[in-house]
Amino acid sequence: MATWSAPGKVFLFGEHAVVFGKPGIAMAIKPRVYVTVRKTRHPPRVRSPYLENCFDIMGVNGSVYIHSQLPSSSGLGSSAAVTVATLSAINDEFDMNYTRADIGDMAYSVEKKVQMGKASLTDTHVSSYGGLVLIKGETKRRLAPQSFQLVIGNTLVSHKTAKLVEMVGEFKKEEPLVVDPILDAIEAVTIRSMYKFDDMKVLGRYMDINHALLEALGVGHPMLTRLVSEARAAGAYGAKMTGAGGGGSMIALCPKRSKNKVASAIEACGGKAIITTIDTDGARKERDYGRNSNSKIRR
Amino acid sequence: MATWSAPGKVFLFGEHAVVFGKPGIAMAIKPRVYVTVRKTRHPPRVRSPYLENCFDIMGVNGSVYIHSQLPSSSGLGSSAAVTVATLSAINDEFDMNYTRADIGDMAYSVEKKVQMGKASLTDTHVSSYGGLVLIKGETKRRLAPQSFQLVIGNTLVSHKTAKLVEMVGEFKKEEPLVVDPILDAIEAVTIRSMYKFDDMKVLGRYMDINHALLEALGVGHPMLTRLVSEARAAGAYGAKMTGAGGGGSMIALCPKRSKNKVASAIEACGGKAIITTIDTDGARKERDYGRNSNSKIRR
Repeated sequence: MATWSAPGKVFLFGEHAVVFGKPGIAMAIKPRVYVTVRKTRHPPRVRSPYLENCFDIMGVNGSVYIHSQLPSSSGLGSSAAVTVATLSAINDEFDMNYTRADIGDMAYSVEKKVQMGKASLTDTHVSSYGGLVLIKGETKRRLAPQSFQLVIGNTLVSHKTAKLVEMVGEFKKEEPLVVDPILDAIEAVTIRSMYKFDDMKVLGRYMDINHALLEALGVGHPMLTRLVSEARAAGAYGAKMTGAGGGGSMIALCPKRSKNKVASAIEACGGKAIITTIDTDGARKERDYGRNSNSKIRR
Repeated sequence: MATWSAPGKVFLFGEHAVVFGKPGIAMAIKPRVYVTVRKTRHPPRVRSPYLENCFDIMGVNGSVYIHSQLPSSSGLGSSAAVTVATLSAINDEFDMNYTRADIGDMAYSVEKKVQMGKASLTDTHVSSYGGLVLIKGETKRRLAPQSFQLVIGNTLVSHKTAKLVEMVGEFKKEEPLVVDPILDAIEAVTIRSMYKFDDMKVLGRYMDINHALLEALGVGHPMLTRLVSEARAAGAYGAKMTGAGGGGSMIALCPKRSKNKVASAIEACGGKAIITTIDTDGARKERDYGRNSNSKIRR
Protein backbone atom coordinates (compact mmCIF):
# COMPACT_ATOMS: atom_id res chain seq x y z
CA MET A 1 0.00 0.00 0.00
CA ALA A 2 1.37 3.43 -0.94
CA THR A 3 -0.05 6.92 -0.32
CA TRP A 4 1.11 9.89 -2.33
CA SER A 5 -0.24 13.38 -2.55
CA ALA A 6 0.02 16.20 -5.09
CA PRO A 7 -0.95 19.88 -4.80
CA GLY A 8 -3.42 22.04 -6.68
CA LYS A 9 -2.40 25.15 -8.59
CA VAL A 10 -3.53 28.66 -9.38
CA PHE A 11 -2.59 30.91 -12.26
CA LEU A 12 -1.20 34.14 -10.83
CA PHE A 13 -0.96 35.71 -14.28
CA GLY A 14 -1.44 34.95 -17.95
CA GLU A 15 -4.11 32.23 -18.16
CA HIS A 16 -5.78 32.07 -21.60
CA ALA A 17 -2.90 34.08 -23.08
CA VAL A 18 -0.62 31.03 -22.53
CA VAL A 19 -2.76 29.14 -25.06
CA PHE A 20 -1.44 31.56 -27.70
CA GLY A 21 2.21 31.26 -26.73
CA LYS A 22 2.27 34.13 -24.23
CA PRO A 23 3.91 33.65 -20.82
CA GLY A 24 1.92 32.59 -17.78
CA ILE A 25 2.82 32.25 -14.12
CA ALA A 26 1.34 29.40 -12.10
CA MET A 27 1.85 28.48 -8.45
CA ALA A 28 1.29 25.26 -6.55
CA ILE A 29 -0.98 25.78 -3.53
CA LYS A 30 -1.17 24.00 -0.19
CA PRO A 31 -4.43 22.06 -0.64
CA ARG A 32 -3.65 18.64 -2.09
CA VAL A 33 -5.12 15.38 -3.20
CA TYR A 34 -4.09 12.20 -1.30
CA VAL A 35 -4.21 8.93 -3.20
CA THR A 36 -3.63 5.48 -1.71
CA VAL A 37 -3.01 2.60 -4.11
CA ARG A 38 -2.96 -1.07 -3.17
CA LYS A 39 -2.16 -4.14 -5.25
CA THR A 40 -5.30 -6.27 -5.40
CA ARG A 41 -6.28 -9.43 -7.16
CA HIS A 42 -9.76 -8.10 -7.95
CA PRO A 43 -9.67 -4.39 -8.68
CA PRO A 44 -12.96 -2.44 -8.96
CA ARG A 45 -14.59 -2.53 -12.37
CA VAL A 46 -16.00 1.02 -12.45
CA ARG A 47 -13.65 3.92 -11.94
CA SER A 48 -13.25 7.54 -13.00
CA PRO A 49 -11.63 7.89 -16.43
CA TYR A 50 -8.59 9.57 -14.81
CA LEU A 51 -7.91 6.60 -12.54
CA GLU A 52 -8.67 4.10 -15.30
CA ASN A 53 -6.14 5.77 -17.58
CA CYS A 54 -3.52 6.01 -14.83
CA PHE A 55 -3.58 2.22 -14.35
CA ASP A 56 -3.75 1.69 -18.12
CA ILE A 57 -0.66 3.79 -18.82
CA MET A 58 1.26 2.04 -16.03
CA GLY A 59 0.10 -1.40 -17.24
CA VAL A 60 -0.96 -2.61 -13.79
CA ASN A 61 -4.12 -2.72 -11.69
CA GLY A 62 -5.12 -2.08 -8.10
CA SER A 63 -7.54 -0.42 -5.71
CA VAL A 64 -7.52 3.29 -5.00
CA TYR A 65 -8.58 5.44 -2.08
CA ILE A 66 -8.74 9.21 -2.66
CA HIS A 67 -9.00 12.03 -0.17
CA SER A 68 -9.07 15.49 -1.72
CA GLN A 69 -8.71 18.95 -0.21
CA LEU A 70 -9.33 20.43 -3.67
CA PRO A 71 -12.85 21.08 -4.94
CA SER A 72 -13.24 19.62 -8.43
CA SER A 73 -14.19 21.72 -11.50
CA SER A 74 -13.11 24.84 -9.67
CA GLY A 75 -10.07 25.75 -11.78
CA LEU A 76 -7.59 24.67 -9.10
CA GLY A 77 -6.12 21.76 -11.05
CA SER A 78 -7.74 18.99 -9.04
CA SER A 79 -7.79 16.50 -11.94
CA ALA A 80 -4.06 17.03 -12.52
CA ALA A 81 -3.38 16.56 -8.79
CA VAL A 82 -5.43 13.33 -8.73
CA THR A 83 -3.57 12.08 -11.79
CA VAL A 84 -0.10 12.98 -10.53
CA ALA A 85 -0.75 11.53 -7.06
CA THR A 86 -2.27 8.33 -8.50
CA LEU A 87 0.61 7.75 -10.91
CA SER A 88 3.11 8.45 -8.11
CA ALA A 89 1.36 6.00 -5.77
CA ILE A 90 1.19 3.29 -8.47
CA ASN A 91 4.87 3.90 -9.24
CA ASP A 92 5.68 3.40 -5.56
CA GLU A 93 3.34 0.48 -4.83
CA PHE A 94 4.55 -1.46 -7.87
CA ASP A 95 8.23 -0.44 -7.52
CA MET A 96 8.36 0.95 -11.03
CA ASN A 97 11.10 3.54 -10.50
CA TYR A 98 9.76 6.24 -12.78
CA THR A 99 11.21 9.70 -12.13
CA ARG A 100 9.22 12.78 -11.21
CA ALA A 101 9.68 13.99 -14.79
CA ASP A 102 8.32 10.70 -16.14
CA ILE A 103 5.29 10.98 -13.83
CA GLY A 104 4.69 14.53 -15.02
CA ASP A 105 4.82 13.48 -18.67
CA MET A 106 2.52 10.50 -18.12
CA ALA A 107 0.10 12.62 -16.12
CA TYR A 108 -0.13 15.02 -19.05
CA SER A 109 -0.83 12.09 -21.41
CA VAL A 110 -3.62 10.89 -19.12
CA GLU A 111 -5.14 14.36 -18.83
CA LYS A 112 -4.90 14.88 -22.57
CA LYS A 113 -6.63 11.58 -23.25
CA VAL A 114 -9.46 12.16 -20.78
CA GLN A 115 -9.92 15.81 -21.74
CA MET A 116 -9.79 14.94 -25.44
CA GLY A 117 -6.64 16.81 -26.36
CA LYS A 118 -7.38 20.03 -24.42
CA ALA A 119 -5.33 19.35 -21.26
CA SER A 120 -3.06 21.91 -19.64
CA LEU A 121 0.65 21.12 -19.47
CA THR A 122 0.82 23.64 -16.66
CA ASP A 123 -1.46 21.80 -14.25
CA THR A 124 0.40 18.46 -14.32
CA HIS A 125 3.81 20.14 -14.28
CA VAL A 126 3.04 22.38 -11.32
CA SER A 127 1.35 19.56 -9.41
CA SER A 128 4.39 17.31 -9.94
CA TYR A 129 7.06 19.83 -8.98
CA GLY A 130 5.28 22.37 -6.77
CA GLY A 131 6.58 25.92 -6.51
CA LEU A 132 6.27 28.85 -8.85
CA VAL A 133 6.57 28.26 -12.58
CA LEU A 134 6.84 30.49 -15.63
CA ILE A 135 5.24 28.81 -18.64
CA LYS A 136 5.74 29.90 -22.24
CA GLY A 137 4.78 27.53 -25.02
CA GLU A 138 6.40 24.18 -24.26
CA THR A 139 9.02 25.64 -21.96
CA LYS A 140 8.68 25.86 -18.21
CA ARG A 141 11.04 27.79 -15.99
CA ARG A 142 11.02 27.39 -12.22
CA LEU A 143 11.02 30.73 -10.43
CA ALA A 144 12.24 31.35 -6.89
CA PRO A 145 9.39 30.53 -4.49
CA GLN A 146 7.52 33.52 -3.07
CA SER A 147 5.47 33.61 0.09
CA PHE A 148 2.45 35.21 -1.54
CA GLN A 149 -0.47 35.27 0.88
CA LEU A 150 -3.55 34.21 -1.04
CA VAL A 151 -7.21 33.76 -0.39
CA ILE A 152 -8.90 31.64 -3.03
CA GLY A 153 -12.60 32.13 -3.62
CA ASN A 154 -14.46 29.30 -5.28
CA THR A 155 -17.62 30.65 -6.94
CA LEU A 156 -19.17 27.16 -6.87
CA VAL A 157 -20.23 27.95 -10.44
CA SER A 158 -19.01 25.06 -12.56
CA HIS A 159 -17.32 25.80 -15.85
CA LYS A 160 -15.84 23.88 -18.74
CA THR A 161 -12.22 24.89 -19.29
CA ALA A 162 -12.09 23.41 -22.80
CA LYS A 163 -15.19 25.33 -23.85
CA LEU A 164 -13.87 28.63 -22.50
CA VAL A 165 -10.51 28.13 -24.19
CA GLU A 166 -12.30 27.40 -27.45
CA MET A 167 -14.50 30.47 -27.03
CA VAL A 168 -11.48 32.75 -26.69
CA GLY A 169 -9.90 31.08 -29.72
CA GLU A 170 -12.98 31.80 -31.79
CA PHE A 171 -13.19 35.36 -30.50
CA LYS A 172 -9.55 35.87 -31.55
CA LYS A 173 -10.32 34.52 -35.01
CA GLU A 174 -13.36 36.78 -35.41
CA GLU A 175 -11.88 39.90 -33.85
CA PRO A 176 -8.08 39.76 -34.03
CA LEU A 177 -7.77 43.55 -33.85
CA VAL A 178 -9.58 43.51 -30.51
CA VAL A 179 -8.20 40.29 -29.01
CA ASP A 180 -4.54 40.47 -30.04
CA PRO A 181 -3.78 43.69 -28.14
CA ILE A 182 -5.64 42.32 -25.09
CA LEU A 183 -3.33 39.30 -25.17
CA ASP A 184 -0.35 41.65 -25.58
CA ALA A 185 -1.47 43.58 -22.51
CA ILE A 186 -1.82 40.36 -20.50
CA GLU A 187 1.67 39.37 -21.64
CA ALA A 188 3.06 42.72 -20.50
CA VAL A 189 1.42 42.48 -17.08
CA THR A 190 2.72 38.93 -16.65
CA ILE A 191 6.29 39.90 -17.52
CA ARG A 192 6.21 43.10 -15.48
CA SER A 193 4.88 41.22 -12.46
CA MET A 194 8.13 39.23 -12.18
CA TYR A 195 10.00 42.45 -11.43
CA LYS A 196 7.54 43.25 -8.65
CA PHE A 197 7.37 40.02 -6.66
CA ASP A 198 8.48 42.00 -3.61
CA ASP A 199 5.97 44.83 -3.99
CA MET A 200 2.56 43.52 -2.99
CA LYS A 201 0.77 46.77 -3.81
CA VAL A 202 1.99 46.86 -7.39
CA LEU A 203 1.52 43.11 -7.77
CA GLY A 204 -2.07 43.47 -6.54
CA ARG A 205 -2.65 46.21 -9.06
CA TYR A 206 -1.31 43.95 -11.82
CA MET A 207 -3.77 41.29 -10.71
CA ASP A 208 -6.60 43.81 -10.96
CA ILE A 209 -5.49 44.70 -14.48
CA ASN A 210 -5.15 41.04 -15.48
CA HIS A 211 -8.66 40.40 -14.15
CA ALA A 212 -10.11 43.25 -16.21
CA LEU A 213 -8.30 42.01 -19.32
CA LEU A 214 -9.76 38.53 -18.81
CA GLU A 215 -13.19 40.13 -18.52
CA ALA A 216 -12.46 41.93 -21.78
CA LEU A 217 -11.78 38.50 -23.33
CA GLY A 218 -15.31 37.54 -22.35
CA VAL A 219 -14.47 34.90 -19.73
CA GLY A 220 -15.88 36.80 -16.76
CA HIS A 221 -18.85 35.78 -14.65
CA PRO A 222 -21.04 37.94 -12.38
CA MET A 223 -20.06 35.83 -9.36
CA LEU A 224 -16.34 36.26 -10.14
CA THR A 225 -16.89 40.02 -10.50
CA ARG A 226 -18.61 40.06 -7.14
CA LEU A 227 -16.03 38.02 -5.23
CA VAL A 228 -13.20 40.07 -6.74
CA SER A 229 -14.90 43.35 -5.78
CA GLU A 230 -15.64 42.17 -2.26
CA ALA A 231 -12.10 40.86 -1.74
CA ARG A 232 -10.67 44.23 -2.77
CA ALA A 233 -13.10 46.06 -0.48
CA ALA A 234 -12.08 43.74 2.39
CA GLY A 235 -8.44 44.77 2.09
CA ALA A 236 -6.84 42.62 -0.61
CA TYR A 237 -3.92 44.19 -2.52
CA GLY A 238 -5.60 42.97 -5.67
CA ALA A 239 -7.75 40.15 -6.99
CA LYS A 240 -8.46 38.28 -10.18
CA MET A 241 -10.19 35.25 -11.56
CA THR A 242 -7.80 32.32 -11.85
CA GLY A 243 -7.90 29.65 -14.52
CA ALA A 244 -10.44 29.50 -17.28
CA GLY A 245 -13.04 31.88 -15.79
CA GLY A 246 -16.77 31.71 -16.56
CA GLY A 247 -17.17 30.46 -12.99
CA GLY A 248 -14.48 28.51 -11.16
CA SER A 249 -12.27 30.41 -8.77
CA MET A 250 -10.68 33.78 -8.06
CA ILE A 251 -7.62 34.65 -6.01
CA ALA A 252 -6.94 37.63 -3.80
CA LEU A 253 -3.42 38.72 -2.87
CA CYS A 254 -3.71 39.84 0.74
CA PRO A 255 -1.81 41.36 3.60
CA LYS A 256 -1.54 38.60 6.25
CA ARG A 257 -3.72 40.60 8.62
CA SER A 258 -6.56 40.83 6.06
CA LYS A 259 -6.77 37.17 5.06
CA ASN A 260 -9.55 36.24 7.47
CA LYS A 261 -11.53 39.33 6.59
CA VAL A 262 -11.19 38.65 2.86
CA ALA A 263 -12.17 35.00 3.36
CA SER A 264 -15.25 36.08 5.33
CA ALA A 265 -16.24 38.57 2.64
CA ILE A 266 -16.03 35.82 0.02
CA GLU A 267 -18.13 33.44 2.08
CA ALA A 268 -20.68 36.18 2.83
CA CYS A 269 -21.28 36.35 -0.95
CA GLY A 270 -21.87 32.60 -1.16
CA GLY A 271 -18.35 31.68 -2.29
CA LYS A 272 -16.12 29.10 -0.61
CA ALA A 273 -12.84 30.52 0.69
CA ILE A 274 -9.47 28.81 1.06
CA ILE A 275 -6.68 30.66 2.84
CA THR A 276 -3.43 29.40 1.45
CA THR A 277 0.06 30.05 0.22
CA ILE A 278 2.70 28.43 -1.98
CA ASP A 279 3.42 24.68 -1.90
CA THR A 280 7.02 23.88 -2.67
CA ASP A 281 6.91 20.07 -2.36
CA GLY A 282 4.90 18.99 -5.39
CA ALA A 283 4.10 15.27 -5.41
CA ARG A 284 5.24 13.60 -2.19
CA LYS A 285 4.98 10.33 -0.29
CA GLU A 286 2.65 10.38 2.73
CA ARG A 287 2.48 8.31 5.89
CA ASP A 288 -1.32 8.47 6.22
CA TYR A 289 -4.35 8.79 3.96
CA GLY A 290 -4.48 12.54 4.25
CA ARG A 291 -7.52 12.76 6.47
CA ASN A 292 -5.33 13.48 9.46
CA SER A 293 -2.75 15.49 7.60
CA ASN A 294 -1.59 18.49 9.52
CA SER A 295 -2.93 21.08 7.17
CA LYS A 296 -4.09 24.55 8.03
CA ILE A 297 -6.50 24.64 5.18
CA ARG A 298 -9.80 26.34 5.57
CA ARG A 299 -12.41 24.30 3.76
CA MET B 1 -35.21 87.76 -23.02
CA ALA B 2 -34.00 84.62 -24.80
CA THR B 3 -34.09 80.99 -23.70
CA TRP B 4 -31.85 78.40 -25.32
CA SER B 5 -31.10 74.85 -24.36
CA ALA B 6 -28.30 72.40 -25.10
CA PRO B 7 -28.07 68.63 -24.53
CA GLY B 8 -25.76 66.48 -22.46
CA LYS B 9 -23.61 63.73 -23.95
CA VAL B 10 -22.31 60.26 -23.28
CA PHE B 11 -19.30 58.48 -24.67
CA LEU B 12 -20.47 55.26 -26.32
CA PHE B 13 -16.90 54.14 -26.98
CA GLY B 14 -13.30 55.29 -26.69
CA GLU B 15 -13.17 57.70 -23.75
CA HIS B 16 -9.64 58.12 -22.32
CA ALA B 17 -8.20 56.60 -25.52
CA VAL B 18 -9.27 59.79 -27.38
CA VAL B 19 -6.80 61.72 -25.23
CA PHE B 20 -4.02 59.78 -26.99
CA GLY B 21 -5.31 60.35 -30.54
CA LYS B 22 -7.49 57.23 -30.73
CA PRO B 23 -11.05 57.47 -32.05
CA GLY B 24 -14.02 57.95 -29.72
CA ILE B 25 -17.77 57.95 -30.32
CA ALA B 26 -19.96 60.36 -28.39
CA MET B 27 -23.70 60.88 -28.53
CA ALA B 28 -25.93 63.76 -27.47
CA ILE B 29 -28.66 62.65 -25.06
CA LYS B 30 -32.16 63.99 -24.44
CA PRO B 31 -31.65 65.61 -21.02
CA ARG B 32 -30.65 69.24 -21.52
CA VAL B 33 -29.84 72.47 -19.79
CA TYR B 34 -32.14 75.46 -20.33
CA VAL B 35 -30.66 78.93 -20.01
CA THR B 36 -32.58 82.19 -20.10
CA VAL B 37 -30.60 85.41 -20.58
CA ARG B 38 -31.96 88.89 -20.18
CA LYS B 39 -30.32 92.26 -20.79
CA THR B 40 -30.18 94.06 -17.45
CA ARG B 41 -28.73 97.29 -16.29
CA HIS B 42 -27.47 95.73 -13.03
CA PRO B 43 -26.29 92.17 -13.57
CA PRO B 44 -25.59 89.98 -10.51
CA ARG B 45 -22.10 90.29 -9.12
CA VAL B 46 -21.47 86.68 -8.11
CA ARG B 47 -21.81 83.97 -10.74
CA SER B 48 -20.36 80.57 -11.60
CA PRO B 49 -17.06 80.81 -13.47
CA TYR B 50 -18.72 79.27 -16.56
CA LEU B 51 -21.37 81.99 -16.75
CA GLU B 52 -18.86 84.71 -15.92
CA ASN B 53 -16.63 83.62 -18.76
CA CYS B 54 -19.53 83.33 -21.20
CA PHE B 55 -20.45 86.99 -20.69
CA ASP B 56 -16.77 87.98 -20.73
CA ILE B 57 -16.09 86.30 -24.08
CA MET B 58 -19.23 87.86 -25.61
CA GLY B 59 -18.35 91.28 -24.16
CA VAL B 60 -21.82 91.94 -22.72
CA ASN B 61 -23.62 91.47 -19.44
CA GLY B 62 -27.02 90.30 -18.26
CA SER B 63 -28.98 88.13 -15.88
CA VAL B 64 -29.24 84.38 -16.23
CA TYR B 65 -31.78 81.78 -15.21
CA ILE B 66 -30.78 78.12 -15.50
CA HIS B 67 -32.87 75.00 -15.38
CA SER B 68 -30.94 71.77 -15.79
CA GLN B 69 -32.04 68.20 -16.40
CA LEU B 70 -28.41 67.10 -16.20
CA PRO B 71 -26.78 66.26 -12.88
CA SER B 72 -23.46 68.07 -12.57
CA SER B 73 -20.10 66.28 -12.09
CA SER B 74 -21.64 63.08 -13.39
CA GLY B 75 -19.71 62.74 -16.64
CA LEU B 76 -22.69 63.76 -18.78
CA GLY B 77 -21.23 67.00 -20.06
CA SER B 78 -23.39 69.34 -18.00
CA SER B 79 -20.83 72.15 -17.89
CA ALA B 80 -20.50 72.08 -21.69
CA ALA B 81 -24.29 72.14 -22.03
CA VAL B 82 -24.56 75.13 -19.65
CA THR B 83 -21.84 76.93 -21.57
CA VAL B 84 -23.27 76.24 -25.03
CA ALA B 85 -26.81 77.17 -23.98
CA THR B 86 -25.64 80.34 -22.23
CA LEU B 87 -23.56 81.51 -25.20
CA SER B 88 -26.45 80.74 -27.55
CA ALA B 89 -28.89 82.69 -25.40
CA ILE B 90 -26.54 85.66 -25.11
CA ASN B 91 -26.02 85.54 -28.89
CA ASP B 92 -29.78 85.66 -29.38
CA GLU B 93 -30.66 88.22 -26.70
CA PHE B 94 -27.97 90.62 -27.89
CA ASP B 95 -28.51 89.93 -31.64
CA MET B 96 -24.89 89.02 -32.16
CA ASN B 97 -25.34 86.67 -35.14
CA TYR B 98 -22.65 84.16 -34.25
CA THR B 99 -23.00 80.82 -36.02
CA ARG B 100 -23.40 77.46 -34.31
CA ALA B 101 -19.75 76.75 -35.15
CA ASP B 102 -18.68 80.04 -33.53
CA ILE B 103 -20.67 79.18 -30.41
CA GLY B 104 -19.04 75.73 -30.28
CA ASP B 105 -15.56 77.25 -30.53
CA MET B 106 -16.27 79.87 -27.91
CA ALA B 107 -17.80 77.28 -25.59
CA TYR B 108 -14.60 75.26 -25.84
CA SER B 109 -12.54 78.37 -24.98
CA VAL B 110 -14.71 79.01 -21.93
CA GLU B 111 -14.47 75.38 -20.77
CA LYS B 112 -10.72 75.37 -21.34
CA LYS B 113 -10.28 78.52 -19.31
CA VAL B 114 -12.44 77.36 -16.39
CA GLN B 115 -11.03 73.82 -16.39
CA MET B 116 -7.46 75.14 -16.70
CA GLY B 117 -6.60 73.71 -20.12
CA LYS B 118 -8.10 70.24 -19.57
CA ALA B 119 -11.48 70.71 -21.30
CA SER B 120 -12.97 68.21 -23.72
CA LEU B 121 -13.53 69.38 -27.30
CA THR B 122 -16.05 66.57 -27.56
CA ASP B 123 -18.45 67.86 -24.92
CA THR B 124 -18.92 71.32 -26.40
CA HIS B 125 -19.08 70.03 -29.97
CA VAL B 126 -21.68 67.37 -29.24
CA SER B 127 -23.74 69.74 -27.11
CA SER B 128 -23.75 72.35 -29.91
CA TYR B 129 -24.63 70.02 -32.77
CA GLY B 130 -26.38 67.06 -31.13
CA GLY B 131 -26.34 63.64 -32.79
CA LEU B 132 -23.64 61.01 -32.99
CA VAL B 133 -20.04 62.09 -33.45
CA LEU B 134 -16.79 60.29 -34.21
CA ILE B 135 -13.87 62.13 -32.66
CA LYS B 136 -10.23 61.55 -33.53
CA GLY B 137 -7.65 64.11 -32.51
CA GLU B 138 -8.90 67.50 -33.69
CA THR B 139 -11.26 66.06 -36.30
CA LYS B 140 -14.92 65.36 -35.71
CA ARG B 141 -17.11 63.43 -38.10
CA ARG B 142 -20.89 63.36 -37.76
CA LEU B 143 -22.29 59.85 -38.01
CA ALA B 144 -25.84 58.93 -39.04
CA PRO B 145 -28.06 59.17 -35.94
CA GLN B 146 -28.97 55.84 -34.33
CA SER B 147 -31.92 55.17 -32.07
CA PHE B 148 -29.86 53.48 -29.36
CA GLN B 149 -31.99 52.82 -26.32
CA LEU B 150 -29.96 53.78 -23.28
CA VAL B 151 -30.33 53.78 -19.56
CA ILE B 152 -27.82 56.01 -17.83
CA GLY B 153 -26.85 55.19 -14.27
CA ASN B 154 -25.37 58.00 -12.23
CA THR B 155 -23.30 56.53 -9.37
CA LEU B 156 -23.63 59.82 -7.44
CA VAL B 157 -19.92 59.33 -6.72
CA SER B 158 -18.25 62.55 -7.75
CA HIS B 159 -15.05 62.37 -9.76
CA LYS B 160 -12.51 64.76 -11.22
CA THR B 161 -12.18 64.21 -14.96
CA ALA B 162 -8.87 66.10 -15.18
CA LYS B 163 -7.36 64.02 -12.38
CA LEU B 164 -8.43 60.72 -13.97
CA VAL B 165 -7.10 61.76 -17.38
CA GLU B 166 -3.81 62.70 -15.74
CA MET B 167 -3.69 59.36 -13.88
CA VAL B 168 -4.03 57.39 -17.12
CA GLY B 169 -1.35 59.57 -18.72
CA GLU B 170 1.04 58.77 -15.88
CA PHE B 171 0.19 55.08 -16.02
CA LYS B 172 0.96 55.10 -19.74
CA LYS B 173 4.31 56.77 -19.07
CA GLU B 174 5.20 54.23 -16.34
CA GLU B 175 3.88 51.11 -18.06
CA PRO B 176 3.73 51.70 -21.81
CA LEU B 177 3.90 47.96 -22.57
CA VAL B 178 0.75 47.43 -20.52
CA VAL B 179 -1.18 50.58 -21.39
CA ASP B 180 -0.46 50.93 -25.13
CA PRO B 181 -2.07 47.60 -26.10
CA ILE B 182 -5.07 48.40 -23.89
CA LEU B 183 -5.50 51.65 -25.83
CA ASP B 184 -5.10 49.70 -29.09
CA ALA B 185 -7.84 47.30 -27.99
CA ILE B 186 -10.14 50.22 -27.12
CA GLU B 187 -9.42 51.70 -30.55
CA ALA B 188 -10.30 48.39 -32.23
CA VAL B 189 -13.59 48.05 -30.32
CA THR B 190 -14.49 51.65 -31.18
CA ILE B 191 -13.84 51.18 -34.89
CA ARG B 192 -15.51 47.76 -35.04
CA SER B 193 -18.59 49.11 -33.27
CA MET B 194 -19.35 51.38 -36.24
CA TYR B 195 -19.91 48.30 -38.41
CA LYS B 196 -22.36 46.93 -35.87
CA PHE B 197 -24.69 49.86 -35.19
CA ASP B 198 -27.59 47.66 -36.31
CA ASP B 199 -26.69 44.66 -34.16
CA MET B 200 -27.52 45.46 -30.56
CA LYS B 201 -26.18 42.18 -29.19
CA VAL B 202 -22.74 42.64 -30.69
CA LEU B 203 -22.73 46.33 -29.82
CA GLY B 204 -23.61 45.46 -26.22
CA ARG B 205 -20.75 42.99 -26.13
CA TYR B 206 -18.38 45.68 -27.40
CA MET B 207 -19.59 47.92 -24.58
CA ASP B 208 -18.81 45.17 -22.08
CA ILE B 209 -15.32 44.84 -23.55
CA ASN B 210 -14.76 48.59 -23.54
CA HIS B 211 -15.84 48.70 -19.88
CA ALA B 212 -13.37 45.96 -18.93
CA LEU B 213 -10.59 47.76 -20.80
CA LEU B 214 -11.35 50.97 -18.92
CA GLU B 215 -11.17 48.99 -15.67
CA ALA B 216 -7.79 47.67 -16.86
CA LEU B 217 -6.70 51.31 -17.25
CA GLY B 218 -7.48 51.77 -13.58
CA VAL B 219 -10.44 54.15 -13.90
CA GLY B 220 -13.05 51.78 -12.51
CA HIS B 221 -15.00 52.23 -9.29
CA PRO B 222 -16.86 49.60 -7.22
CA MET B 223 -20.14 51.45 -7.71
CA LEU B 224 -19.64 51.50 -11.50
CA THR B 225 -18.83 47.77 -11.43
CA ARG B 226 -22.00 47.15 -9.49
CA LEU B 227 -24.31 49.22 -11.67
CA VAL B 228 -22.85 47.68 -14.81
CA SER B 229 -23.30 44.12 -13.45
CA GLU B 230 -26.86 44.81 -12.32
CA ALA B 231 -27.81 46.41 -15.63
CA ARG B 232 -26.56 43.36 -17.52
CA ALA B 233 -28.41 41.02 -15.16
CA ALA B 234 -31.59 43.07 -15.68
CA GLY B 235 -31.48 42.47 -19.43
CA ALA B 236 -29.18 45.07 -20.97
CA TYR B 237 -27.36 44.05 -24.17
CA GLY B 238 -24.22 45.48 -22.59
CA ALA B 239 -23.06 48.19 -20.23
CA LYS B 240 -20.04 50.33 -19.55
CA MET B 241 -18.86 53.31 -17.60
CA THR B 242 -19.10 56.49 -19.66
CA GLY B 243 -16.73 59.44 -19.44
CA ALA B 244 -13.80 59.62 -17.09
CA GLY B 245 -14.80 56.83 -14.69
CA GLY B 246 -13.73 56.69 -11.04
CA GLY B 247 -17.38 57.49 -10.23
CA GLY B 248 -19.63 59.48 -12.55
CA SER B 249 -21.99 57.56 -14.78
CA MET B 250 -22.45 54.31 -16.69
CA ILE B 251 -24.64 53.54 -19.67
CA ALA B 252 -26.56 50.39 -20.51
CA LEU B 253 -27.66 49.57 -24.07
CA CYS B 254 -31.09 48.01 -23.64
CA PRO B 255 -33.92 46.36 -25.49
CA LYS B 256 -36.86 48.80 -25.25
CA ARG B 257 -38.81 46.34 -23.14
CA SER B 258 -36.00 46.12 -20.55
CA LYS B 259 -35.40 49.82 -20.00
CA ASN B 260 -37.66 50.15 -16.97
CA LYS B 261 -36.26 46.99 -15.41
CA VAL B 262 -32.68 48.15 -15.95
CA ALA B 263 -33.50 51.58 -14.51
CA SER B 264 -35.08 49.96 -11.45
CA ALA B 265 -32.04 47.72 -10.95
CA ILE B 266 -29.77 50.77 -11.04
CA GLU B 267 -31.91 52.65 -8.53
CA ALA B 268 -32.12 49.59 -6.27
CA CYS B 269 -28.31 49.81 -5.96
CA GLY B 270 -28.45 53.46 -4.97
CA GLY B 271 -27.75 54.89 -8.43
CA LYS B 272 -29.88 57.47 -10.21
CA ALA B 273 -31.31 56.26 -13.52
CA ILE B 274 -32.14 58.25 -16.65
CA ILE B 275 -33.94 56.48 -19.49
CA THR B 276 -32.97 58.24 -22.68
CA THR B 277 -31.97 58.10 -26.30
CA ILE B 278 -30.21 60.24 -28.89
CA ASP B 279 -30.77 63.98 -29.18
CA THR B 280 -30.41 65.24 -32.73
CA ASP B 281 -31.15 68.94 -32.16
CA GLY B 282 -28.11 70.17 -30.28
CA ALA B 283 -28.43 73.76 -29.08
CA ARG B 284 -31.90 75.13 -29.79
CA LYS B 285 -34.13 78.11 -29.05
CA GLU B 286 -36.92 77.44 -26.53
CA ARG B 287 -40.25 79.09 -25.92
CA ASP B 288 -40.26 78.51 -22.15
CA TYR B 289 -37.72 78.17 -19.34
CA GLY B 290 -37.58 74.41 -19.60
CA ARG B 291 -39.46 73.64 -16.41
CA ASN B 292 -42.55 72.80 -18.44
CA SER B 293 -40.71 71.31 -21.38
CA ASN B 294 -42.37 68.23 -22.74
CA SER B 295 -39.61 65.79 -21.81
CA LYS B 296 -40.02 62.15 -21.00
CA ILE B 297 -36.96 62.11 -18.87
CA ARG B 298 -36.90 60.03 -15.73
CA ARG B 299 -35.15 62.04 -13.07
